[in-house]
Amino acid sequence: MADPSTSPPLTRASVAAAHTLITPCIHRTPVLTNTTLSHLASTPLSVSPSNPHPSHPTIRFHFKCENLQRIGAFKARGAFHALERLRASPTFNPSSGVCTHSSGNHAQALALAAKTAGIPAHIVMPSISSPAKLAATKGYGARIIPSGSTSSEREAVVAEVIKETGATLIPPYDHPDIILGQGTAGLELQEQVAPTKLDAIIAPCGGGGLLSGTALSCEGTGIKVFGAEPEFEGGDDARRAYYSETGERIASVKTLTIADGLRTPVGAIPWSIIYERRLVAGMYAVTEDQIKAALRLVYERMKIVVEPSAVVGLAVALFNEEFRSMVEKEGGEKGWEIGVIFTGGNVSLEALGKLFAE
Amino acid sequence: MADPSTSPPLTRASVAAAHTLITPCIHRTPVLTNTTLSHLASTPLSVSPSNPHPSHPTIRFHFKCENLQRIGAFKARGAFHALERLRASPTFNPSSGVCTHSSGNHAQALALAAKTAGIPAHIVMPSISSPAKLAATKGYGARIIPSGSTSSEREAVVAEVIKETGATLIPPYDHPDIILGQGTAGLELQEQVAPTKLDAIIAPCGGGGLLSGTALSCEGTGIKVFGAEPEFEGGDDARRAYYSETGERIASVKTLTIADGLRTPVGAIPWSIIYERRLVAGMYAVTEDQIKAALRLVYERMKIVVEPSAVVGLAVALFNEEFRSMVEKEGGEKGWEIGVIFTGGNVSLEALGKLFAE
Repeated sequence: MADPSTSPPLTRASVAAAHTLITPCIHRTPVLTNTTLSHLASTPLSVSPSNPHPSHPTIRFHFKCENLQRIGAFKARGAFHALERLRASPTFNPSSGVCTHSSGNHAQALALAAKTAGIPAHIVMPSISSPAKLAATKGYGARIIPSGSTSSEREAVVAEVIKETGATLIPPYDHPDIILGQGTAGLELQEQVAPTKLDAIIAPCGGGGLLSGTALSCEGTGIKVFGAEPEFEGGDDARRAYYSETGERIASVKTLTIADGLRTPVGAIPWSIIYERRLVAGMYAVTEDQIKAALRLVYERMKIVVEPSAVVGLAVALFNEEFRSMVEKEGGEKGWEIGVIFTGGNVSLEALGKLFAE
Repeated sequence: MADPSTSPPLTRASVAAAHTLITPCIHRTPVLTNTTLSHLASTPLSVSPSNPHPSHPTIRFHFKCENLQRIGAFKARGAFHALERLRASPTFNPSSGVCTHSSGNHAQALALAAKTAGIPAHIVMPSISSPAKLAATKGYGARIIPSGSTSSEREAVVAEVIKETGATLIPPYDHPDIILGQGTAGLELQEQVAPTKLDAIIAPCGGGGLLSGTALSCEGTGIKVFGAEPEFEGGDDARRAYYSETGERIASVKTLTIADGLRTPVGAIPWSIIYERRLVAGMYAVTEDQIKAALRLVYERMKIVVEPSAVVGLAVALFNEEFRSMVEKEGGEKGWEIGVIFTGGNVSLEALGKLFAE
């Protein structure tokens, strides 16, 4: 792994520098608004026994569409940044290449970044990965090394690959270069809505690379950053740790939430930004049904393809009463301009069909 | 019905006038390009016994995204135009309102146009219509009148509604005002790709309102217009008539193609433009599997939501060897800039799931 101690400091200025570095490699994805969804978010939820006095926030959404990013997810940002930084290091031997283990968007992102730089990529993927994912990663020219699906099995194969090839490990989120790269999405979003000034940004939290990077991109701006997680089977590890007495990171999670990009526990470096430096103002969780309802609204009303993980932030704004009453209180009559990061759009039509089977 | 003889002449100038009239009411939908899809279209199909020498055209796509239009389909253009023209007529009584029969996008389009103008809309819909479609049309404030599903049953109910309310019928495609309205999509597309000049536009053909309107929008420009249809169960009525000896319109079709917006036979006035005036340069058909393959590519590669009918033109450019060899011959090494109209995005997640069930 590239020595994290040689990375730039974790600041807003470093996110801006990362943006300059990767701008030629990534798409400046569009920011969309949607009257129907903003109207819906600004309408009180139905009265129910558990919610007798629903709050009445005023919310205007600005959706950062990283589902339209290269490889279909924000992960391209971190991968390109980590690789650009690595290539600038005098000790890096390009012909040894890079490696990682991932069954998801990070695999494709690193494969694309390596291909662009003309560097070999060795990607360890569980042999049970879907043929579509294997094909997509292969399609970017990477060498796929199959492994078992437990983390110890995967790590053993990675160690072997590194020993054999001398490749440098590019981890999916727990590295400063990755975090700074992901933060560029938040920076762009702020630029793109100007002259409107955002009051808040909501980002999903899996390993925490995007959330912590977004938080850095907002440091000193007055924009509040919130994290969103699935609550299913304890998938809200960061939320639980955030509001616990000790504030200790929960390092292990086992959830099969439909938001499959958010099944990982939050990483140590992201956690130091999210919690220890208090750069994230709050964490919120939503149910599987709320994620599905948000997904349906995006397909039917915005006509764009997003993966379940992508809409967890939107689900918080639409359905989490705790979040909504906070926005009502803080935003008052004028309300809040809320940036929501749609993280990716890599979902198969088969998986989508299963989710919404009648 | 508004007297067609009072409509403007069917010319490119009238399409431009229609555009001026409806611009405040409609979205200027984006035109997207996609490197992967253009590359795919510029790659020969696999060699097969039935196609031993696949052609090698060069194609660059420009997708006009009417799936992002108001009500999720181009039909908003025709409905707003027909209604604006009707309101300008001295004999029209606004309080009597308008009516139509439709189970699809025209119902929602007319409901929205009427609501915007503050005029009552009476929409006759088969009682077997999906709850989602009924709800969407009701959501725009229209009065829904249930009917049987055969065309004679529906027309009987429409006649009753007109007798009872004095409402004016706004048909879905067989009217000059509708055709001129739909043609504005083609006009916008030409403006939006400038300074690039299109060589061709492909539009799907159901009732023929969009295809004939697009043809008018290209008259005298040198841009060739082609029609695309599903071949399943004879859904390619316009193609069959176009290449028949007599050139006579086929007035009745019974197909259950997945491209459900294209199940209707082409109308008489559209046909006079498409065939008799020779403003459409060719008609092509594709199979259900080709439509599904095109649909999958749009979801996976472009990350936008389209309905099956919307991609029939793309399927022609990707898979119809007759069309492709024509492009190779006419476009030569330089190739063709092809505009493709994505007509709509109104498909339920349930229907999509069924289409792609494993």
